[in-house]
Amino acid sequence: MQAVVYKGPKEVAVEDVEEPEIEHPNDVVINITTSCICGSDLHMYEGRTAAESGIVFGHENMGVVTEVGNAVSTLEEGDRVVAPFNVACGFCENCEDGYTGFCTNVNPGFAGGAYGYVAMGPYKGGQAEKLRIPYADFNALKLPEGTEHEDSFALLADIFPTGWHGTELANLKPGDSVAIFGAGPVGLMAAYSAKIKGAAEIYVVDRVPSRLELAEQHCDATGINFEEGDPVDQITEIHGGEVDKGVDAVGYQAIDPDTDPGSDAYDPARENPAVVLNQLVQVVRPTGQLGIPGLYVPSDPGAPDEMAAQGRLGIDFGKLFEKGQKLGTGQCNVKQYNRELRDLIIEGRADPSWVVSHRVSLEEAPEMYEKFDNREEGVTKVLLEP
Amino acid sequence: MQAVVYKGPKEVAVEDVEEPEIEHPNDVVINITTSCICGSDLHMYEGRTAAESGIVFGHENMGVVTEVGNAVSTLEEGDRVVAPFNVACGFCENCEDGYTGFCTNVNPGFAGGAYGYVAMGPYKGGQAEKLRIPYADFNALKLPEGTEHEDSFALLADIFPTGWHGTELANLKPGDSVAIFGAGPVGLMAAYSAKIKGAAEIYVVDRVPSRLELAEQHCDATGINFEEGDPVDQITEIHGGEVDKGVDAVGYQAIDPDTDPGSDAYDPARENPAVVLNQLVQVVRPTGQLGIPGLYVPSDPGAPDEMAAQGRLGIDFGKLFEKGQKLGTGQCNVKQYNRELRDLIIEGRADPSWVVSHRVSLEEAPEMYEKFDNREEGVTKVLLEP
Amino acid sequence: MQAVVYKGPKEVAVEDVEEPEIEHPNDVVINITTSCICGSDLHMYEGRTAAESGIVFGHENMGVVTEVGNAVSTLEEGDRVVAPFNVACGFCENCEDGYTGFCTNVNPGFAGGAYGYVAMGPYKGGQAEKLRIPYADFNALKLPEGTEHEDSFALLADIFPTGWHGTELANLKPGDSVAIFGAGPVGLMAAYSAKIKGAAEIYVVDRVPSRLELAEQHCDATGINFEEGDPVDQITEIHGGEVDKGVDAVGYQAIDPDTDPGSDAYDPARENPAVVLNQLVQVVRPTGQLGIPGLYVPSDPGAPDEMAAQGRLGIDFGKLFEKGQKLGTGQCNVKQYNRELRDLIIEGRADPSWVVSHRVSLEEAPEMYEKFDNREEGVTKVLLEP
Amino acid sequence: MQAVVYKGPKEVAVEDVEEPEIEHPNDVVINITTSCICGSDLHMYEGRTAAESGIVFGHENMGVVTEVGNAVSTLEEGDRVVAPFNVACGFCENCEDGYTGFCTNVNPGFAGGAYGYVAMGPYKGGQAEKLRIPYADFNALKLPEGTEHEDSFALLADIFPTGWHGTELANLKPGDSVAIFGAGPVGLMAAYSAKIKGAAEIYVVDRVPSRLELAEQHCDATGINFEEGDPVDQITEIHGGEVDKGVDAVGYQAIDPDTDPGSDAYDPARENPAVVLNQLVQVVRPTGQLGIPGLYVPSDPGAPDEMAAQGRLGIDFGKLFEKGQKLGTGQCNVKQYNRELRDLIIEGRADPSWVVSHRVSLEEAPEMYEKFDNREEGVTKVLLEP
Repeated sequence: MQAVVYKGPKEVAVEDVEEPEIEHPNDVVINITTSCICGSDLHMYEGRTAAESGIVFGHENMGVVTEVGNAVSTLEEGDRVVAPFNVACGFCENCEDGYTGFCTNVNPGFAGGAYGYVAMGPYKGGQAEKLRIPYADFNALKLPEGTEHEDSFALLADIFPTGWHGTELANLKPGDSVAIFGAGPVGLMAAYSAKIKGAAEIYVVDRVPSRLELAEQHCDATGINFEEGDPVDQITEIHGGEVDKGVDAVGYQAIDPDTDPGSDAYDPARENPAVVLNQLVQVVRPTGQLGIPGLYVPSDPGAPDEMAAQGRLGIDFGKLFEKGQKLGTGQCNVKQYNRELRDLIIEGRADPSWVVSHRVSLEEAPEMYEKFDNREEGVTKVLLEP
Repeated sequence: MQAVVYKGPKEVAVEDVEEPEIEHPNDVVINITTSCICGSDLHMYEGRTAAESGIVFGHENMGVVTEVGNAVSTLEEGDRVVAPFNVACGFCENCEDGYTGFCTNVNPGFAGGAYGYVAMGPYKGGQAEKLRIPYADFNALKLPEGTEHEDSFALLADIFPTGWHGTELANLKPGDSVAIFGAGPVGLMAAYSAKIKGAAEIYVVDRVPSRLELAEQHCDATGINFEEGDPVDQITEIHGGEVDKGVDAVGYQAIDPDTDPGSDAYDPARENPAVVLNQLVQVVRPTGQLGIPGLYVPSDPGAPDEMAAQGRLGIDFGKLFEKGQKLGTGQCNVKQYNRELRDLIIEGRADPSWVVSHRVSLEEAPEMYEKFDNREEGVTKVLLEP
Repeated sequence: MQAVVYKGPKEVAVEDVEEPEIEHPNDVVINITTSCICGSDLHMYEGRTAAESGIVFGHENMGVVTEVGNAVSTLEEGDRVVAPFNVACGFCENCEDGYTGFCTNVNPGFAGGAYGYVAMGPYKGGQAEKLRIPYADFNALKLPEGTEHEDSFALLADIFPTGWHGTELANLKPGDSVAIFGAGPVGLMAAYSAKIKGAAEIYVVDRVPSRLELAEQHCDATGINFEEGDPVDQITEIHGGEVDKGVDAVGYQAIDPDTDPGSDAYDPARENPAVVLNQLVQVVRPTGQLGIPGLYVPSDPGAPDEMAAQGRLGIDFGKLFEKGQKLGTGQCNVKQYNRELRDLIIEGRADPSWVVSHRVSLEEAPEMYEKFDNREEGVTKVLLEP
Repeated sequence: MQAVVYKGPKEVAVEDVEEPEIEHPNDVVINITTSCICGSDLHMYEGRTAAESGIVFGHENMGVVTEVGNAVSTLEEGDRVVAPFNVACGFCENCEDGYTGFCTNVNPGFAGGAYGYVAMGPYKGGQAEKLRIPYADFNALKLPEGTEHEDSFALLADIFPTGWHGTELANLKPGDSVAIFGAGPVGLMAAYSAKIKGAAEIYVVDRVPSRLELAEQHCDATGINFEEGDPVDQITEIHGGEVDKGVDAVGYQAIDPDTDPGSDAYDPARENPAVVLNQLVQVVRPTGQLGIPGLYVPSDPGAPDEMAAQGRLGIDFGKLFEKGQKLGTGQCNVKQYNRELRDLIIEGRADPSWVVSHRVSLEEAPEMYEKFDNREEGVTKVLLEP
């Protein structure tokens, strides 16, 4: 079958790979109907991880069941399902506690597994024609038959729950004001989640005008362009003080507003991995909470300095403590949210598909990786259709 | 009346000061029966804050009501009370939400007020014969008449609730394993709280053998002496892996185990303000939580480096994120816990008075400050009796 | 001044009464700008309580401060405020825990106080020109100056928070399906709250078509008319099974669908005080939760049987247990919600004023009481303007 | 193999039955080392359910794995395990939310499955030599090798977690006072749980002096004998008012203290199924919570009246509402607690084995059923050893 294969820094190819098959009685195999390119794929694509060539990418996957292991109880051929990007067993202590992003059984020596991702276990990605899903009763979420809501449902694999997770980690409550840093797909989904949950005021910070427009249009947010002035100052001025909660949907490749923008292009020299964290400490009020779904890594070969290369960041902890803030981090436990979000989509209360900018064939993946990596205006979220 | 007055670095004196009186209809004045010296008083005593001479120290206060403002509803002359170290109004948004350590009404321009402490508002301390308590219906906790449990009740002003707060911030649950860094009064009270709450395993880390012995004797804890080997290694070896939760009862004046102990004396040159935070990130398991009642400050003139002087610390955030940890910080909101802890004392289920090493007269305060500041063996907690 | 005074069953009059004044240093007095008639006023109006003639009605009050006690810290003349219907001290154990509806200081021998209500303490009602507010720093919520949102803000005194409380007691989460019994003002506000919080499906049960239309129009709810068939059957058929959560916004004067409707008029002979509770047990799924803000009383002289007269109801507890349901009851602790709801109104995210059907002068109160008591079509919520 | 088989009202026999085998790839089979007789077995034994003869009893089971299905990941022959009394799949919505007592996959048409119990699915009981455990990775909790703590670990199958569950449903917090009705095994375990969790005061109500003594001796509880006076009056007098929380560990076969005790023997004519619920409403303070692990059933052929026969009970709901109480019900979700309780046992912080009065061979089961059913003094908890 055809699949998107990592060849080396800034290079992917669509190649023939072996088809997946049932390896364990609790597996199913699905025909992929939609797989997405994720911002976190770019970390590998850019050669900024330990990923070696040959990896099949794709951790945001949905499709139709074609084969069913003989221990599977609740799925059968023809079922339409979406798989969380996490691979999880369902019975380790972390899974039982709902922390399916930190399963201790599926990736020996590490807490957490995923499809098609370096160091996340032996699970092939779904930017391909077929995918094997382990512990399928646990990992495959059933969807209504047919093709309705295909784009929205595909977002249940990662970015809609991950954006939601950001607001959960921040303990966002109805009536709260919230500042969300980053208007990439996860930041936009966090803003959309905040709207659904009844936030009173939503500020979204980015540098790309078209993304800020999406936030304003679909999330009733106030867009804050950090190239036009210190984002903390802008928010506190508009809001009349600090906000209740904050979400970091940027992570370690954050751009420092105090650096020279030069051109519009993304410029790694402007990175400052702690800048968003410290902006959040500043902009959130005493007793507030910070939700941090944006990725931070314990080892970054491309970091601006030696300390950051080991994932050690200069955080304004004295200020954070003085304010009595709390913070929550980590990748999303998709299963904690995907049922409810699915139901909101089915009932017409949520339709996150506005974040999708492109739906293309698998063959076009290499081109779209390049465009997405260049942060081309208008390339927000790319879906692949084998 | 007599009071302990700050004169300058490493110098306090017992002097005559003006008696407090009712300044507002919601005030009461009490005769102090017990006031305590707190580890956080030492920050001022050592000249490591902006405290100016003339401050009356003492934020851990109990006594008997002698005067009652005409708006006070529930207190009368003769009532025995203990006051949280926080001064709080009871009706701002933070107080209503239980964050009485972050009251926005009692200390203009800042969230939080306290007695006898630099930058915490105009409230005189209680290392004196008398004390004014504002918003007394809200701030004074009634105690049974008499003198029973005097020591234990005095600890309700700060360290027993603050130790408890550490375990709350860490979301400690029955059956959890927990690592507590610091066996000063707050760390010992955190360990005692963990025992009361049904922790399965308690590790307490310090360098003073007598303090570790107290933790073992009164809290069923395992003492870990960090001068005898890396504390993370020691705990994970004994426990057989990472623990569920962690508490930092040390704060920014943490000693780096990798420095030369030299003598037994406390040596500021060994400080490394982020060392305990990073040990916690290491020793707590993925999905675990860190409770941080230990003090961190946004400005430290005596810091080991320029970054730390501004309260910016090098934290292993990449690792923290990878583990999906959460953390909570900030000074204790004493009123969230003091009723319940009082009741545990009254019913004989808790008796934290074992942490008290000295009860002396007010006149002996200067001598005891010196001994406590020298971390003299056996000087754990000093109570003053005017 | 003029005020609405209870004269006896089915009779109120607008009469001259004494003006309120500052009785305690923590009081303020306000000029009423809006006061509302509440469904719970009808219990007294109908003579179905121990209320004696002479009571000034009115527990939903807002206005402008005219006098300020000398212990009040944060209010001054001219401030526009809304008062929760609860009178609360702010410093008893219940108030500290957020249970301001169960204050133990303001109504000796009972947990909870309110304005203008039988057995709820000595507090005059606000269907009058002026009102005294005790513990004003705690009880008066400040509003923006002017007259904007007057209707919506008036609803912050009771029914908007009370409806919200119903959904909190039911632990309603985004994505949940919920059945709300009763489309009176509280039920409608519960449905509106459910919408704001991101419920996936909302069912509202009543017999008055115009009320069900309001629920459909403003809350995206599905209206269920119980005169047209068993409401449990209707909901489970439309929903395809039991719902996640339930809210009882009816209380003890519930109408049994199995009785003969006769005319459209309200007919006490059709009452069955446990019928809604048992419908909720049926319609909510195993592990679901029931929120019960609808009033139940320990003594009802007009009850259909002797057991109900003592507040003892026949509840399907075997079924409730088998389903492992939880339930929460009790009058709303308005202060837990009124700040956030105020902010949602100010930011334009909530506008509950659609529930208001009439705004009339104080003089028209007697006429409106009669119409409201007759459940006249179109009389949903009446506001009085002195 | 030998097993305890239900023959009809008041009759069980030890008979030869077919050995269990692997029926599904996720099953394991264990050799039973300990199985317990549970109070809920008596409902069937007394003929007060729809149980038909032939059922193999036993839902509290532990043993050693002898056969392993080929889809099982984490268990192997020789592993020592204890099984929750609930049979659960691990991947339905209820299981995912932690409600493993209400699994919707293992018992078609009903939420919840169990071993050896009428209407709880096709799962054979473990009062036998062997037992099949479905979804074994999820349902079998691993124990340390050997025979240490055999009694305590056996109690992890049901009564220790179920007692704990009662205190969780009541939202018991450290420092709370709590009234626990019933000093059978579950009530005693609830009292023991309350002690471990740091309750300030524990009252245990029963009529059997030896059981009250166990509560006093092992749980620091105050025993209340309801034959010696109204239990609510006794508690409020000793405590000086209402308590914070309440637990009903009795259920529908509650004895009404207002009936004539006659002899010491258990007398069904004294039953009043709502009496404990109403005592709890009385004895718990406003805003308090009731945890109800004691069994209530929707159909009781032996009920004292027609209403109770349908599980409809006369509950003082008016009073409950006035007090703003909350309540939680339902059978225990054992997996929510059994890991932590196991760890407490391993670490020596909990040792519930004091509740065990008898450990006998399987052959003695009929005799022990009879004694246990007669509530013979000293027969608290019986363990069977095949």
